[in-house]
Amino acid sequence: MLSEFSLIERYFSQPAAAFGAPDDEPKATLGIGDDCALLAPKHGQHLAISTDMLVSGRHFFPDVSPWALGYKALAVNLSDLAAMGAKPRAFTLALSMPTADESWLEAFSGGLFDMANQHGCELIGGDTTSGPHVCISITVFGDVPAGEALRRDSARPGDDIWVSGVLGGARAGLGIRRGEWSMKDPADEAVAIKALEQPEPRVALGIALRGIAHAALDISDGLAGDLLHILKRSNVRATVNIDQIPRCATLAALPDASQVHCILAGGDDYELCFTAPVAVRAEIERVGTVQKVLLTRIGTIEGPAAEGRAAIDWRDNTGPVSLSDTGFDHFHAD
Amino acid sequence: MLSEFSLIERYFSQPAAAFGAPDDEPKATLGIGDDCALLAPKHGQHLAISTDMLVSGRHFFPDVSPWALGYKALAVNLSDLAAMGAKPRAFTLALSMPTADESWLEAFSGGLFDMANQHGCELIGGDTTSGPHVCISITVFGDVPAGEALRRDSARPGDDIWVSGVLGGARAGLGIRRGEWSMKDPADEAVAIKALEQPEPRVALGIALRGIAHAALDISDGLAGDLLHILKRSNVRATVNIDQIPRCATLAALPDASQVHCILAGGDDYELCFTAPVAVRAEIERVGTVQKVLLTRIGTIEGPAAEGRAAIDWRDNTGPVSLSDTGFDHFHAD
Repeated sequence: MLSEFSLIERYFSQPAAAFGAPDDEPKATLGIGDDCALLAPKHGQHLAISTDMLVSGRHFFPDVSPWALGYKALAVNLSDLAAMGAKPRAFTLALSMPTADESWLEAFSGGLFDMANQHGCELIGGDTTSGPHVCISITVFGDVPAGEALRRDSARPGDDIWVSGVLGGARAGLGIRRGEWSMKDPADEAVAIKALEQPEPRVALGIALRGIAHAALDISDGLAGDLLHILKRSNVRATVNIDQIPRCATLAALPDASQVHCILAGGDDYELCFTAPVAVRAEIERVGTVQKVLLTRIGTIEGPAAEGRAAIDWRDNTGPVSLSDTGFDHFHAD
Repeated sequence: MLSEFSLIERYFSQPAAAFGAPDDEPKATLGIGDDCALLAPKHGQHLAISTDMLVSGRHFFPDVSPWALGYKALAVNLSDLAAMGAKPRAFTLALSMPTADESWLEAFSGGLFDMANQHGCELIGGDTTSGPHVCISITVFGDVPAGEALRRDSARPGDDIWVSGVLGGARAGLGIRRGEWSMKDPADEAVAIKALEQPEPRVALGIALRGIAHAALDISDGLAGDLLHILKRSNVRATVNIDQIPRCATLAALPDASQVHCILAGGDDYELCFTAPVAVRAEIERVGTVQKVLLTRIGTIEGPAAEGRAAIDWRDNTGPVSLSDTGFDHFHAD
């Protein structure tokens, strides 16, 4: 059995040359191996920080590919940086597992660094320990120019509501993994499972939306619940047309009610939902073209919430609809 | 059952006025409630960052007082900042637990904020989720002037080796909790258990040692193993006199072999071990007097490690001794 120090040295240290990011500037003044890592501040920049915890059996299947797990564990955190318009810089990893399984660790760290190196994000510290289940906690750090962060509290009446990409694929993949449903075409199932296991954080999009979008967040618990966070923090209401929400193509294999559940309350989409004034529609469309990302208007921010209560008026192409979906909550049944 | 958002709002948000720290400057530009928190850099300061994971049954007993658990969970992280000479500023918390037990959460957050407020350290973000066991991951942030951090790689031949406080008490408390041994006087047991459950991070001491000490770390896994980290990173050897290591008074109730185990390989001391040139002995003693912290010289840093291998020559007052203790390793049996 390897000691904690051997584990960190063998699987979680990599030479600086491994970074394939466009800018190879040093990320940390001091990295792994001391009591703390040290980050030097950047003039005019704020440091964006987000933390997440993933627990075996809750956020991933115990038998998930460890490569995919490492890849996704960092991806979901980078998605939080993307939602602020922050440029990834570094992260820490805390990891517990029952035994130090070397083949598992090699694959896990491989996936982790594949994602990290795509975004020039350096592992600067961590903690490995034994524990009864695999539990992963990552904290990410990114840079965003002071005053330019895309916050949740900045939506304004009249703003368009946009989403990136297509929604619902990850929830379809979860349903397949759980045996809730199956699709006739294995290729469709593979698309859905890839959406679940290998989300791509919209980092470049978040950076491109600085100065254009008003409010933004990443859709991690389902659009219906997550959009409410923007509305509540911004003290506004919204109208959303369900028929305008772009659906992952594989959802067509499912009944319509399941499709609507997947796109509104599925979770794990890791697409951006953002608001922006009507005047910048063309600019946003250009961003989508340049970045080859589908960007779709799905609704409108309305006036202040009545009696302090934020709410969404759901519509489809035929008129108002009533919904009880409220997103994925980690202390409620799905 | 409360939702994740309700949990965070109820137990982990506190008004800024709750801070009792001497300086009430804002810690974060943006705190809990967005995709990321935002920290503004401080001119001339580096940001020190450390992360830890505590797992039920491994790092604490499942029936430990939740107040003490919250208190210690942050304390052990602040101890890493202390070891760098960094001033605490903020932290994030990731927490999984089987069910959202409100009385447990109230006590846990109470202990957490008691420690946080002592050090002016603001909770700026987090994640709560359900999981089969209680698992806590905290990441702390502190400020240290550029170039003044107390690193592990800065010990120099001729340096004195110092420790703060007394060692071994926490390991004695663990032995009592495990039923390995007992003490005749319940007051002794209470001292040992308090050392285990309520360590006090040496934050003010670490700050005072900036510019005086060469290398430093906090003793979390046992002096014998932890000192090796300084030696290895600094490429030096050391001589340590076991009889000079200050022992927690309650250890006197145990056999001498158990005492030596407790002070060298017990772990959970959260005292500082640091090296400093002989010329600053008087200055260090003044720091100890001002701060009312016992500071004791226990040995000397020797020349470069032979063939790259760091090592400690253990002595007692009668001459050389041989030891096989190598500290507490999270992937070895204790």
